[in-house]
Formats: sequence, C-alpha cells, structure tokens
Amino acid sequence: MSSDVTHDPAVRAFVAEHRSRLVEELSAWLRIPSISADPEHADDVARSADWLAQRLVRAGFPTVEIWPTEGLPAVYAEWPSDDADAPTVVLYGHHDVQPADPIELWETSPFEPLVRATPYGEELVGRGAIDDKGQVYFHVVGLAAHLATTGRTSPAVNLKLVVEGEEESGSAHFAQLLRDHRDRLDCDVVVVSDTGVYGRDAISVCVGMRGMVEVQLEARGPAGDLHSGSFGGAVPNPVTVLARMVARLHDADGHVTLPGFYDRVVPLTDRERELLARLPYDEERWLANAQSTATYGEAGFTTFERIWARPTAEVNGLWGGYTGPGGKTIIPSEAHAKLSFRLVADQDPADVRPAMDRWLELLRAEGTIPAGIEVTAHYEKPGVGPFLTPLDHPALQSVTRAMGRAFGTEVLYTREGGSGPQAALAAVLGAPVVFLGVGLPDDRIHAPNEKADLEFLLAGAEAAAYLWADLAATWER
Amino acid sequence: MSSDVTHDPAVRAFVAEHRSRLVEELSAWLRIPSISADPEHADDVARSADWLAQRLVRAGFPTVEIWPTEGLPAVYAEWPSDDADAPTVVLYGHHDVQPADPIELWETSPFEPLVRATPYGEELVGRGAIDDKGQVYFHVVGLAAHLATTGRTSPAVNLKLVVEGEEESGSAHFAQLLRDHRDRLDCDVVVVSDTGVYGRDAISVCVGMRGMVEVQLEARGPAGDLHSGSFGGAVPNPVTVLARMVARLHDADGHVTLPGFYDRVVPLTDRERELLARLPYDEERWLANAQSTATYGEAGFTTFERIWARPTAEVNGLWGGYTGPGGKTIIPSEAHAKLSFRLVADQDPADVRPAMDRWLELLRAEGTIPAGIEVTAHYEKPGVGPFLTPLDHPALQSVTRAMGRAFGTEVLYTREGGSGPQAALAAVLGAPVVFLGVGLPDDRIHAPNEKADLEFLLAGAEAAAYLWADLAATWER
Repeated sequence: MSSDVTHDPAVRAFVAEHRSRLVEELSAWLRIPSISADPEHADDVARSADWLAQRLVRAGFPTVEIWPTEGLPAVYAEWPSDDADAPTVVLYGHHDVQPADPIELWETSPFEPLVRATPYGEELVGRGAIDDKGQVYFHVVGLAAHLATTGRTSPAVNLKLVVEGEEESGSAHFAQLLRDHRDRLDCDVVVVSDTGVYGRDAISVCVGMRGMVEVQLEARGPAGDLHSGSFGGAVPNPVTVLARMVARLHDADGHVTLPGFYDRVVPLTDRERELLARLPYDEERWLANAQSTATYGEAGFTTFERIWARPTAEVNGLWGGYTGPGGKTIIPSEAHAKLSFRLVADQDPADVRPAMDRWLELLRAEGTIPAGIEVTAHYEKPGVGPFLTPLDHPALQSVTRAMGRAFGTEVLYTREGGSGPQAALAAVLGAPVVFLGVGLPDDRIHAPNEKADLEFLLAGAEAAAYLWADLAATWER
Repeated sequence: MSSDVTHDPAVRAFVAEHRSRLVEELSAWLRIPSISADPEHADDVARSADWLAQRLVRAGFPTVEIWPTEGLPAVYAEWPSDDADAPTVVLYGHHDVQPADPIELWETSPFEPLVRATPYGEELVGRGAIDDKGQVYFHVVGLAAHLATTGRTSPAVNLKLVVEGEEESGSAHFAQLLRDHRDRLDCDVVVVSDTGVYGRDAISVCVGMRGMVEVQLEARGPAGDLHSGSFGGAVPNPVTVLARMVARLHDADGHVTLPGFYDRVVPLTDRERELLARLPYDEERWLANAQSTATYGEAGFTTFERIWARPTAEVNGLWGGYTGPGGKTIIPSEAHAKLSFRLVADQDPADVRPAMDRWLELLRAEGTIPAGIEVTAHYEKPGVGPFLTPLDHPALQSVTRAMGRAFGTEVLYTREGGSGPQAALAAVLGAPVVFLGVGLPDDRIHAPNEKADLEFLLAGAEAAAYLWADLAATWER
C-alpha cells in the first residue's frame, strides 16, 4: 500500500540517536510497579502517573494534568498546534500494568527491566515494556523527532494525550472520565497506541473492533425442585428448555437466529476479504493459541472473518439444578444462562434487546418454550458498540502511510474480535478511532517475561513522527 | 374387581376390638424418635428396633432378631407355617422416621402422638403414624386376627418380616443386608407395606415402579477458558454443544432418542390404560402438587401413563462456564450435565450404557458433537431395575381381594414413578413384589402433622388378615 513511500532519513537518525535514552528512561518508568488490579500498588500507580506527567512537561507540553478518578489517576497533556487549521488528535494509552504473577516463571525480575540480545536485535524485558508504557513512551521520542526534524515549536496537530491508569483492571471509571472532560477532549480523530501488528512478517493496522451486549436468561418451571421419579416426564424441565433455546440460538449454518440480527451488518467487501486473506494464517499455530483442536463457526467465512467481521452469540455460562457430587434426581425449578453477543459495524447494541424479545416470542410460538416455563431476559449493562474505520478514511490512510514508511513494507489490516476502552473513546468522543500499535504476538503481554522488541519501539516512534505531519498535511476539515 | 367378595365379620370384629390397643401400643412406639438421618438419634433407632422386636416376640414369632448393619439396625422375625406347602412371604416395612423439621409447623408435639376427631372418624397424629410404624404395626393386629379367627397356631404362610432402620436416610446398607441374609430371605413373594392408596374414594394397589440409571456427561473444548472476543465464533463452545445434546435427547414427540431405548418397554395393555383412566385425575390439583402451571411430556400418553408406565430422560443438573454475578465473556473450557433415565419393565439398566455410547456416536456422526469437543459419559452406580407385577399375577390377585374385602370396594391399580428399596428386594430376592399399603395422599408424610386415619390402619390390619389366608389358599407352587 505504501511501498513507494520511503522513510525520512532525518527522522530515522533522530530516533536511532535516542535509542539508549529510550531504554534508560522507559526502564525508569517500568521500575514503578503500577499494578492497577492490586490495591496495595495504588501508590505505585500514582507514582507512575507523576513520572509520566513530569516527563511530558520536560517534553514541552504546555498543559499537563493528573486527572483523578474514583479509582486510579489518569494523565492528561495538551499541546495545541500553532497552525490554525490543524486537526485535533486524542492520543490514548495507559500507564498501569498487569500483575507479575506467576512470578516464579519470570527469567528476570519483572520490575527490573533488562535489555537482552535476540535473533532480531534487542528486546527490553519487563512488565509493561510493550503493554503499554513502551507504546506511550515511544510517542515522547516520536513527538521530539517530529519537532526536531520539521523545525516546529509546536506539533502539526493539536495533541491531547490521555493515559489511563485502570486499563488492566477493567477501565471501570474511564467512560465517566471521558464524559467528565468531554469538552476538553473534543477532537477530529482518536489514535490508540495499545495494540500490535499481526506479526514480524506482516505489519498491520487494526481497523475495527466488535461491540458487545450481555444478557442473562432465566427459565423458571416448577416453583420448587421436584422428585424426578414422581414427576419426571410429565412437567416441563427448565434446564431442558434452556438447553433447547441455546441449541436454537444458531441455525445449521452457524447463523444467529435472533430476528433481524444481521440487518445492519456491513458486509465484507471483496477488497477487505482479499486483504484479510493476505495475512499469513497458520491454522496449527492459531489452534495452539486457542488451546483447541478444531475451528468451528459460521459457514462461508474464514477464521479471521468469523472473529473480526461477523457477529456472534456465545454462551459464557449456563447452570441449573444439582451440580454437586453424586446424583440428585430432581427436575430443577430454574435454569440460567449468560449469553454475550459480539457485534460488528453497523449493529447497534440497543437493537439486541428488542431482537431478543422477538426471538423469545418466536420460541414460545413454536413451542421451544412450552407452557409451564417462564423465560425472562436481564441486561445489566447497555452494551458497547462496534466500530470500523473504513479503509479509505483519511486518518487511516495517514496511519497506514506512517507505518509503511517506518517499517518499509506494505501495511495490511486486521481487526479485533473483542472490545476495549477504545469503544468508549469512539462512543463518547464521537470520533473515528485509528490504531498505531507496534506490539508483536510473541511479546507475552499479561504473561511472564513480557518484552518489547527495541526495533519495533523505535519504529513506533518513527511512525508517530510521520503520523502528525501526515495528518496535518492531508486532513480536510 | 372384588365387589362380590364381602368381609369376614369375625376378622372385622377382632380388629375393631383391638382399636384402643392399637392406638396405645403404636403410640408407645411413636414416642421413640427413631430419626435415621440424625446421628444424634442413633440410640433412638436402636430403641425402636428393640421395641418392635419385643412386640414381635409377644405376638408369637418364634424367631426374632436384631440385624445390625454398618449403619442402623433392622428387625427380622420369622414364623414358619405348620402347613408343609405354605408359600413363603417376605414382609417389608421400616421403623425409622423422617426428622420432625420444621418443628414450629406442628400443631402437636411430633413425638407425643394424639388421637383427633376428623370428618371421617379419627386420626392418630405423630411422626411415623403412617410412614411407616403404623403400617408395620397393623400387621401385628392383622396377624393376630388371622390366627384368632382361623384357629391356627401358626400363620397360613411362612412369614419373614424385615423391618429396616434406614429407609428415611436412603437405605444405604439395605441391599447389602439383603445380600448378607439372602439364604434366610428366600421367598415366593415380597409384600411391601410402606405406600398408600390413590385416595379415600379410590382404593388402589401399586403394581410397579420405575428403575433408574444416572449418567454424567462431560463436554470438553478448549484446554482453558478463552476470551470470547478474541476467539468467539471460531471455536466450538462446549456449553453450546452440551445444550444441543440435551436438546437432541428427545424428539419432537418427547420420545427419548437413545437408539433402542424403547426396545424392551412393555406396552400398556388396553386393560391397564382403562384401569389407569378410572383413577380420578384432577389436573388442577395435580399441577398444584407439582408446583407447576402446565403438564408436558411424551405425545399420546396421559400424565399417569407418562409418570408410571413410560421411561423418561431428565436433566437433573447442567453447568459450565461462568455462573457468578455480573458477566465474564469467556468461551468455557468444559460443561457438565447430570442426566437420569427412569426405566419401565422390561428395560434393563445395563442396556442404557451401550445405548448412550451409540447415541454419542450418532451425535458425532451428524455433527451435533463437532470436532474439537470431546464428550464422555460417567456412571457412578449400576442403576436400579424397574419392576411390574402383571395384573393376573396370583399374589396381586390375593392382595386385590384382601384390600377389596377390607375396604368393601373395587380396587384400582396405580404405579410409582420413582424407585425405592423395593427395587432392591425384587432384584436381590428375585421374587415378585406386591404392595399392601393404606396411606392417604393427605397423610402429610415427611411433613409436619403426619397422621394416619385410624379407619385405614384398621382396614390395613383386616386386609393383612385376609391376605395370608388368601395367599395360602390360592398359591400354586
């Protein structure tokens, strides 16, 4: 896609000169065990926020603030462009990290970062090296390179940096934080640096994530558990009925049977399918990663298409009746199932509830839910929307060019099957989200011996430098 | 069936004369709180056994023994007939009782029995009044009447009385007890006095019970729980698969789909269906008892036929994945289901396992169990066989005549949907089992204010007196 665009020798030289400083400063930050899931590390998360805030002040940001939440603090920094028409970018990352457990599997101390040689160059080992301190820090180098090589005293874009402190513990207060600061976070585009590329041999950019709606179904039959001898065969069993409902949730081709479920699904274009198909897919490796022995799913779609571009319905949990040791010959009084629907653009989470209501009506009408069984659906949360950046979106084009120049290769496209705080960014800020991430599948995020390839962190810094200039140059307001 | 047979005035007079003694002696026994489920009452269960043993000695049994078990003791008494060709009867009852909880709902003290007037006569209120001390005790009166009115010095049948002490806590050691004493318990027929009639207006005899096989199914998918965003839609979900298996367990008509499951089922004869149909069935009352709002089941059968004469498959419990509060968006690694099959004559519990194996093969072949999901079946127990006494069996004819004479009415037939220690009697002793029981549906067995109608206990004694004479007179060896 950008094989005709070459790198800027000045940017590359600047970044290369800052290699040892990147290692030194990032290591200092990594030494702070900012584990958000562990209340005993709350002070460390605060120290981590302070460290970043001070570093951003030194980087030249005229506005740097610690944003407290009801949980752990985020860091906010703002550097307006001197150019009147500059686009405004919210840049997202997080400064908290995963716990180090199981600690005994680390080859080095998780919070004593260390540079090691690899067949590919060097790697920095330590908790947070790539997820996400390394990817926040490369922006400090990238911004400096942007300023130094363009001779600017302000970025080419209005830069608003939001670095969350609770991403690894569920981002419980992040959506509220965004809503509280909605006006200051007004922007044209959101850049997220918390993801990775498909592989060393397949540099890629993520263009979408699935949304999600969770629902709990309750099936109630007899008012109490019944003796299965005295009543078995003569009253409906709510566990059996719920099992039949789950069986009815997909048709023989693996399509979800909720009426109208696919109405707003944006079909994959031939171009998108072709691009996804170019990602090197090794089924054996994929299955090993999935701890599974066979793939499965909607007929007519590849594994990547199923996970990234198609909506799904999964049972996350189901229970009813006696589940202890031995036997208890009852007809259970009730049964429960937790379902989650993953949604793709342009499905709306708000549509799932009425579709579920129509589905339940259908199941009652056809007898899958018989007289004597009452089924209700409960929603604890409103759900999260999917998002998809069209391949021709200008911001995505800018990211693609920046990544292509930094890595000197064609850039492919992936999506994510899950949902993250990025969904809240897209929803609350109402802006397109693009991803500038340089993680590798073997970076062992959330696992012992997390690492970042130094060449990839430097490439990230280089891509960031290109991105601000490219966005400013190509953006049409 | 026996409306042309009248009562014997001498027997009825004997029984009526012993009414106050029955109340007095049975009350003394009921004062012993022989609660087998409560270890603190182990001594009371032993005292109860001693009380009965002494009473049987006084009744004239030449052999009376306490049979210890690894749990609580049974009482055994033997009284051979002087007649050389007399048939041999094992008479079964139990002397342990249910706990009295919830004690606050008793109108009288559960172990201070009391006679109260009712619209129908009098009732004896107290734990064990009908289940089962009252029904063991009426045999003492009945046997005395039999001897006194025939002028015999020994019963007309060889009588072997086995009164268990652990029935209300699961008969854990009963089958072993029967096996240990198998030779001494050799018999032609087993008479069980631990059940009831269909109603005050429908005197009946139970002619069969269902057997049972329990199986636990395990469905295993990914080696660990997976993130439903990263993998959802592309690997098989074991909970979904198990739900589909449960849905597949019955066809649209409610038939169980295990291959060959019905091969050995003895069909209901027209005569049996006609007799069952004559039992007064009040669906509203039946549903209230079932705590349900609708009946359900195999097409073409009535509620009684479904429960008593048809085999079933029920899910007693099913679980997999996340079952706690809130949501956890996983593809679970495994799922489990506890199933129980109720069997009717002449199904063999040993046939269920190979039928299940064939069923699993079928489900694999058709794709209900897809590649990537491993399903196994586990059996903790060998299962219990069903039994059914043919309507023309001589022992059943004797019981029918005895009940008909005692109650002065036609006798109908019921069955039981469950399985009890009677199944062990039939299996270990290899003899037909008939039921002589006079409980009423409103006797509140296992509940507060358990009672026995005195007229019914006396009718039981009268029926017992007729039974021994009838069996001896009509038995063909």
